[in-house]
Amino acid sequence: MAELLKGKDVASAVMKRCSAVSAELKEQGITPTLAILRVGENESDLSYERGAEKRCEKAGVKVVKRVLPADITDFVFYGILDELNWDKNIHGILMFRPLPAYLDNERARCYINPVKDVDGCTDRSLGGIFTGKQIGFAPCTAEAVLETLDYYGIDPKGKNVTVIGRSLVIGKPVSMMLLNRNATVTICHTKTVDLPSVTRKADIVIAAAGQPEMLTKEYFREGQTVIDVGINWNEKKGKLCGDVLYEDAEPVVAKITPVPGGIGSVTTSVLVSHVVEAAKRAAEKADR
Amino acid sequence: MAELLKGKDVASAVMKRCSAVSAELKEQGITPTLAILRVGENESDLSYERGAEKRCEKAGVKVVKRVLPADITDFVFYGILDELNWDKNIHGILMFRPLPAYLDNERARCYINPVKDVDGCTDRSLGGIFTGKQIGFAPCTAEAVLETLDYYGIDPKGKNVTVIGRSLVIGKPVSMMLLNRNATVTICHTKTVDLPSVTRKADIVIAAAGQPEMLTKEYFREGQTVIDVGINWNEKKGKLCGDVLYEDAEPVVAKITPVPGGIGSVTTSVLVSHVVEAAKRAAEKADR
Repeated sequence: MAELLKGKDVASAVMKRCSAVSAELKEQGITPTLAILRVGENESDLSYERGAEKRCEKAGVKVVKRVLPADITDFVFYGILDELNWDKNIHGILMFRPLPAYLDNERARCYINPVKDVDGCTDRSLGGIFTGKQIGFAPCTAEAVLETLDYYGIDPKGKNVTVIGRSLVIGKPVSMMLLNRNATVTICHTKTVDLPSVTRKADIVIAAAGQPEMLTKEYFREGQTVIDVGINWNEKKGKLCGDVLYEDAEPVVAKITPVPGGIGSVTTSVLVSHVVEAAKRAAEKADR
Repeated sequence: MAELLKGKDVASAVMKRCSAVSAELKEQGITPTLAILRVGENESDLSYERGAEKRCEKAGVKVVKRVLPADITDFVFYGILDELNWDKNIHGILMFRPLPAYLDNERARCYINPVKDVDGCTDRSLGGIFTGKQIGFAPCTAEAVLETLDYYGIDPKGKNVTVIGRSLVIGKPVSMMLLNRNATVTICHTKTVDLPSVTRKADIVIAAAGQPEMLTKEYFREGQTVIDVGINWNEKKGKLCGDVLYEDAEPVVAKITPVPGGIGSVTTSVLVSHVVEAAKRAAEKADR
């Protein structure tokens, strides 16, 4: 029986910090504000948006929504992004991706004002994570992993951490963040040979492959901490599942995050914390 | 007896490519030009500079030197850097670091025009290596490692590669470059627990710790490829040495780079290749 690392408790702790900072800002007449930019009506975007809105409300963070039809012209789209980038009352921008291809995902990703890039998607934010300079923010999911480890008192220092996945949204940034926290980090991917033998050697396994229930029994050993970042829809079972086959891993390992109810539930609270922090930084800058 | 991976042969192959491109550019009336910016008379800078100048000459690359006294004002220093950044006849800038502290190393590092950043030191170049976008160039030493593996037909794809060191000059960028080449990469450092057990598991060991002869017998096993990036002065022996204790490793492993005569001899040829490539890119841009 593994210890369950529940995201809910982590999120509550993060939200408590957010509310405190948000209240301080309110006293200065500042309402931390997040702009959500969404094109179309993708179901998973809508579900994330609902969660984010709820969390923002709880922390006194205002949400401004810009919902655009899937056939928006790129002239109008980038015009709106310009407005959000320059509007002093907007502290953070969350843009759902992928966008329709004709809007140029790569351009849009880096178009966001780095100081408002609360989901760490621009080159400047990501570059800062690589060089160790604080520019903007880390991708929320990557930081949710660190928040979860911290909350449960799991110090990555000197630990062997295996990260499965090398995307810019999670695999690469979380690897760099763990490296900055003095973990010995191994980055695996689809070309890794004999992945189970690599994961079994790890003290902490971060599963971010985006493959439903890919990590079965042979990937794990006793004593490990397993952080499952995957959120996949299991057609056969008709429910959400992670990258880890939970019923295989849970009896073996020491600690594990469930799906749902794990990292996914921490992510939006991290988003809120970034908006509040962005508002705080903007206020400090204006003070100077 | 390990196979010796000699840098000289790699460098010759790189230089051959450089000379060919350089000759093409000459036909268009373009002389690829490197500016070397040096403050003071540090002996290791001077030695690297001599090597770079010799190589540049061989490939038909012009070198412009800006040698400044160690008490230069920052006003003049950044003025010169401005000139080099804007001068259309300068294609690459090599700035020796560390600079005297009052010149602000961090500022100077990122001040170089990214398209001329032939040693990959700016945030933009490094960010590009992280995100996989080609912006500027990789740090020369990191690329020298890849050139060496390529020359000797060692494909990192699917291999377990352990990198020791996490600096922005070599450890982090070479890790990302190897990851892009589909290696399974483990990044180690001073906080890694039981380093020998980690290096012994690797197919390829990249030693970039900056610690003279730190990697002794117990770090290695049969069949490994060892790339020694270290260049240290061994006071006791009165000679240059790597991070690997050569006489320990060489009888055990399959392939090894010597020090001197290994990666260090490839680095300046990579620098030349970057200058030539920067000149080529500038010409193509002017053509458009």
